[in-house]
Amino acid sequence: MARRKKVYEGKAKILYEGPEPGTLVQYFKDDATAFNAEKKDVIEGKGVLNNRLSEFFMDGLASAGVPTHFIKRINMREQLIRAVEIVPLEVIVRNRAAGSLSKRLGIEEGTPLPRPIVEFCYKDDKLGDPLVTEEHIIAFGWASQQDLDDMVALALRVNDFLTGVFHAVGIRLIDFKIEIGRIYDGDFQRLIIADEISPDSCRLWDVKTNQKLDKDVFRHDLGNLADAYTEVARRLGVLPRNATQMTKPTLIN
Amino acid sequence: MARRKKVYEGKAKILYEGPEPGTLVQYFKDDATAFNAEKKDVIEGKGVLNNRLSEFFMDGLASAGVPTHFIKRINMREQLIRAVEIVPLEVIVRNRAAGSLSKRLGIEEGTPLPRPIVEFCYKDDKLGDPLVTEEHIIAFGWASQQDLDDMVALALRVNDFLTGVFHAVGIRLIDFKIEIGRIYDGDFQRLIIADEISPDSCRLWDVKTNQKLDKDVFRHDLGNLADAYTEVARRLGVLPRNATQMTKPTLIN
Ligand SMILES: Nc1ncnc2c1ncn2[C@@H]1O[C@H](COP(=O)(O)OP(=O)(O)OP(=O)(O)O)[C@@H](O)[C@H]1O
Ligand SMILES: Nc1ncnc2c1ncn2[C@@H]1O[C@H](COP(=O)(O)OP(=O)(O)OP(=O)(O)O)[C@@H](O)[C@H]1O
Ligand SMILES: [Mg+2]
Ligand SMILES: [Mg+2]
Repeated sequence: MARRKKVYEGKAKILYEGPEPGTLVQYFKDDATAFNAEKKDVIEGKGVLNNRLSEFFMDGLASAGVPTHFIKRINMREQLIRAVEIVPLEVIVRNRAAGSLSKRLGIEEGTPLPRPIVEFCYKDDKLGDPLVTEEHIIAFGWASQQDLDDMVALALRVNDFLTGVFHAVGIRLIDFKIEIGRIYDGDFQRLIIADEISPDSCRLWDVKTNQKLDKDVFRHDLGNLADAYTEVARRLGVLPRNATQMTKPTLIN
Repeated sequence: MARRKKVYEGKAKILYEGPEPGTLVQYFKDDATAFNAEKKDVIEGKGVLNNRLSEFFMDGLASAGVPTHFIKRINMREQLIRAVEIVPLEVIVRNRAAGSLSKRLGIEEGTPLPRPIVEFCYKDDKLGDPLVTEEHIIAFGWASQQDLDDMVALALRVNDFLTGVFHAVGIRLIDFKIEIGRIYDGDFQRLIIADEISPDSCRLWDVKTNQKLDKDVFRHDLGNLADAYTEVARRLGVLPRNATQMTKPTLIN
């Protein structure tokens, strides 16, 4: 096979040109970063787990009629996706206070919110992905009012779906972040879910023990990150149910 | 305890007066009926399983911010609920063709639908719960246009949530039926999910084998109904994961 052209290398993933126009190959690395890459490490097995978990969530979303960029998994670390024009916003949905919301507004972590809150952050690592309002977004042309309404609706559908997924396996979905992209069909534009959905981009707490099963384990040195992700994968049947926690997961094909 | 007053006895459940005004006790019977009660049987354990499963789904919906009548489970067969004024419509959401849709429109069971379809049937056993359109509903005053819009939105949220729940445990949600009720707060009215959510009111197919895990097992004599519901409960952790299929389930408390 000819050497593929690298399109972009980010902190957690690499994008390569795909086999067909309009497609890309998304490669999941083992690199973990936090606090805008001030903290870094390599967590063996993370990329493999996130590739499989993102496949699992995107597949389920598609079955619920929520459009995503996911086409198919290629191998342990790669998946074929539709190339999109990424809307330069991180879309965050919060069910309980945590992370930056807790810090900025002085609300204790874990406090249930009166209703799910959708936030937008401007995707710019140099600026630390700052929170923005709809006013900023429209004024600077990052998205139209119609796009914003569609993005909120998509984000809330993803929240209902993921809340259901995690409810089934004894995990509370505290919050998550998604990225959304545009695809074009002639003059028409559609918004679809892009990037990844994984424990890197969700906050997941065990319902009974409040144990953290997401990237906060790495952010705050709470234990072995791959073990936490393995536990999530095991509960969702992405790993065999009887798999013990392990750093090198044996994955079901 | 004083003898409670029976408010209503239906085919699968009994409603008793609750301890507080505005509450009811919902008792789950073992009776199974199909084809508008032409086919009848008693399935030992069904009421216990549906009580627990409905609790599990209603709890999860509440955590996703979808309002329901569920307050708490009282014992193996009873749950405390908010009394509502039931909207006299069965609200059906279909992801794939099955049952009456397949029959009426000649679409093979299992065919994916272009998008989830919401249907309303007029709740009247004598008439066999006939399909009605929004025109009928508004003309006869069963619900207003605003109610209908709200009911469609609620039903689609329940669909996203339940699709997620079942996706997590290898089950495809083909369709389901809910009932919705009105509660009043002064002059204001709110619509909330009432009745039950259980394998009696869903079509559930194993993703890999297409095995039916719902009331169709009873409707079409495909095996032991309680075993099928036990399997659903087991996968969702409502029964211990290692529980074998059994007619008399040992339930986690
Ligand atoms: N379907 C897609 N088409 C085009 N780009 C995509 C698609 N899905 C995700 N991306 C982009 O691919 C990159 C994935 O890499 P990674 O997540 O490692 O980036 P990052 O280090 O988080 O930084 P940033 O997201 O700011 O670029 C992201 O830039 C993401 O926005
Ligand atoms: N929160 C509630 N408040 C008042 N009534 C309720 C509530 N939840 C459910 N119900 C009603 O309680 C009854 C439950 O009994 P069951 O499901 O056995 O009835 P059924 O035989 O299906 O017949 P039908 O639904 O036509 O009355 C239903 O009539 C249902 O509409
Ligand atoms: Mg990223
Ligand atoms: Mg009923």
